[in-house]
Amino acid sequence: MTVFSYQALYNFTESVFLAMGCSAKDATTATKVLIAADLRGIDSHGVARLSGYVRLWEAGRINATPNLSIVHETPSTAVVDGDAGLGLVVAPYAMQIAIDKAKQVGTGWVSVKNSNHFGIAGYHAMMALEHDMIGMAMTNASALVAPTFSSEKMLGTNPIAVAIPAGNEPAFVADMATTTAANGKLEMLQRKNADAPLGWVQDEQGNDVTDANILKKGGALLPLGSDREHGSHKGYALGAIVDIFSAVLSGGSYGPWAPPFPAYIPLPQNMPGEGLGHFFGAMRIDAFRTAAAFKTDMDLWISRFRQAVPVNANIPVIIPGDPERLMSVRRMAEGIPLLPVVMEDLQSLADKFNIKF
Amino acid sequence: MTVFSYQALYNFTESVFLAMGCSAKDATTATKVLIAADLRGIDSHGVARLSGYVRLWEAGRINATPNLSIVHETPSTAVVDGDAGLGLVVAPYAMQIAIDKAKQVGTGWVSVKNSNHFGIAGYHAMMALEHDMIGMAMTNASALVAPTFSSEKMLGTNPIAVAIPAGNEPAFVADMATTTAANGKLEMLQRKNADAPLGWVQDEQGNDVTDANILKKGGALLPLGSDREHGSHKGYALGAIVDIFSAVLSGGSYGPWAPPFPAYIPLPQNMPGEGLGHFFGAMRIDAFRTAAAFKTDMDLWISRFRQAVPVNANIPVIIPGDPERLMSVRRMAEGIPLLPVVMEDLQSLADKFNIKF
Repeated sequence: MTVFSYQALYNFTESVFLAMGCSAKDATTATKVLIAADLRGIDSHGVARLSGYVRLWEAGRINATPNLSIVHETPSTAVVDGDAGLGLVVAPYAMQIAIDKAKQVGTGWVSVKNSNHFGIAGYHAMMALEHDMIGMAMTNASALVAPTFSSEKMLGTNPIAVAIPAGNEPAFVADMATTTAANGKLEMLQRKNADAPLGWVQDEQGNDVTDANILKKGGALLPLGSDREHGSHKGYALGAIVDIFSAVLSGGSYGPWAPPFPAYIPLPQNMPGEGLGHFFGAMRIDAFRTAAAFKTDMDLWISRFRQAVPVNANIPVIIPGDPERLMSVRRMAEGIPLLPVVMEDLQSLADKFNIKF
Repeated sequence: MTVFSYQALYNFTESVFLAMGCSAKDATTATKVLIAADLRGIDSHGVARLSGYVRLWEAGRINATPNLSIVHETPSTAVVDGDAGLGLVVAPYAMQIAIDKAKQVGTGWVSVKNSNHFGIAGYHAMMALEHDMIGMAMTNASALVAPTFSSEKMLGTNPIAVAIPAGNEPAFVADMATTTAANGKLEMLQRKNADAPLGWVQDEQGNDVTDANILKKGGALLPLGSDREHGSHKGYALGAIVDIFSAVLSGGSYGPWAPPFPAYIPLPQNMPGEGLGHFFGAMRIDAFRTAAAFKTDMDLWISRFRQAVPVNANIPVIIPGDPERLMSVRRMAEGIPLLPVVMEDLQSLADKFNIKF
C-alpha cells in the first residue's frame, strides 16, 4: 500500500473529470463526493471506481455535460432528470433541491431518474447537517442480490443513508447497503483469496456458500438477514423500498433492469425507465421542535448509547458514523493508502489523459 | 383453538373500549386497528393485547378521553401530543394529518409524543393507499433489543411499515420489526416450549443462546442481522433511526427510557420525554409523476418479482404484504382462531366490565 495525501488524490481526480469534459464546477463536486469515500474508509466507492466512471463515459453511458432539470414538482417534492450525468454531480444537485424545499415548507423529497452511480450515500445525506436538517439518501443499483426464496438476482445492494444532527456530540450518520455485506466487503475477500462467512452469498442454485467469487459464477449477494429464519425477507423489503422510491417514483429503470456499473456489461433489454434512480430527503429539525431542544436530546441519546453495558469491556457500543468520522480525521492527517491494483488503474488514467499522477 | 368471526371479536372489543370510557368514535377506531392485526395474522398485536391496554388504563397510564392536539406545524410537518391516549386512536389521527398535508404540499410528516402502543404499523401506513399515496409508519417501544456489542437492552423492536399503491396488482405492504425476529415470534415459541434459532436472542452476558425465555432472565432480542459479521449494526441503526424519528423529533421518551407495555413494570426513572413516540409519512404519488404511470410500473415491478426464478419450484418469491393480505381474506371468511389463554383473557375482561363474550 502506498499512501497519498487527500490533496494529491483530489487534484488528480479533478483533472480526470476535467479531461472527461466536465465543467470546473461539476469536476469539483464530483471529486469531493468521490474522495469522501476514500477519506471515510469506504475504499470500494472512492478512486478505485474512477476508471469505471471513465469507461462508462467512453461507452457513451455517462454524459459529462448534462442538462440537469426538474421535470415535475410540488412545494415539498421534485423529480429530477439527471440527463445521464455523473451521479456524483446529479446527487448533490438533487439533494440541494430537497434542502431548499425543506427551508420553505419543512421537508423536501426528490426522486431522480436517468442518473448513474452517486458514490457514497452518506455524503449526500450529510449535506443536510449544516442546515440543522435530517438528511436521507438512497439509490438503486444493478442487480446483484437475490430476494428471499429467489435464485435470480433482482435488486442492487441499494443503500440507505440517514444523517441526524446533534449538539456537542458528532452527528449520527448511518450509511448501509441493504444486504448482509456490501459488495465492497466481498471484493476485499476476493483480493485476499479468502472465503466469505456463510450468510453473505449463495450460488446459482440458491445454496449457501462461502466462495467470495460466486457472483462471477451466477451466484448472488443475500439481503440483510441472510436467510428467511433470520429475517432476510426484511432486508429484501428494504432493498425493494429503495428501488421503488429511487426508480419507480422517478421513472428510472428498476429491479433487474437497473443499468450495470461495469461498461463491458450490456444494458438490460427492455428497460422500463431511464437510467439509475436515487431518492433524497431533507427534514428541517425546527419544523418539528426547536433545534436546540432536539440537539440536547440527541446528545443525551448518543452519550447514553455510548455508555450501554458492553459485552466485551474493550469493545464499546458504537454510534453509527463513528468509525467513518474517526477514519476521516486520521486519513486527512496521515494520508489515504491505495492498493497497487488501484494505483495501476489511476496510472492508466493518467496515461490516457496525459495528466500527472 | 376456537374460531370467532371478525364481527364477534369486533363487537366485543368495541364494548371493552366503550367500557373504558372511550368515545364511540374512538372505540370504533381503536377496534378497527386492533382487530386488523388478528385479521392479518399478526396475532401478537390483536385481541391478545386487549387486556394489556386495559391494565395500562387501570394504572392511569392510558387516558381514555385524550385531547389530541398539534403542538407545532409547518406546511409539510406536525408534532402531535397524544395526551397519553391509546396509540390505537392517536396513530390514525396523526396519519390523517400527514395525508391532509400531502394533499396540500405533496408530502406530510408527523412525529408524535405522549402516546402508547399503536397496534400494527401496517394499518396506519395503509391508510395512505386509498389516496394514491405512499404511507409510512414507525414507532418506538420499550427496550428489549441489545445494540451490536451491547449486553444491555436499549431499543424496542421499533417496526417500520411502508405501503405503496399499485394498479391491478395488490399494494406492496412491508411491515417489519427491526430485529431478526419480532417479539411475537419469540412468544409463540415460549407457548410451545420450543427453542429459538441461534441469532434471535442473547443472554444477559451477550452470549448467543436458543432459550426462548431468555428475555425474562436478563437476555435481549438481537437487531436484524443477528451479529456484527451478518450486519447487526445495520439492524441496530434502523432501530435507532425509528427511535429518533419517533421520540427525539417529537419530544417523546426514547431508548432505554421508552415506557413499557406491561403495566406491572414501573416507568423508567428520569424519562427525558413524554410517553411513546411514533412517526408517520404520506407522499402523494402525483407529487412525483402521474399515479397512472407509477401504477403501471408498480404492476410490472410486482409481476416481475413474482416471476423471479425460485430456489425451490414450490416456493415462489413473495411480494411484501402478500401473506397478510391472503390471511386477511381467509380469516374474514373462515373466522379468527384464538388460543385458550387468549380466550380466558377476554373472558376476564367480559367479567370485569360485565359485558358478554
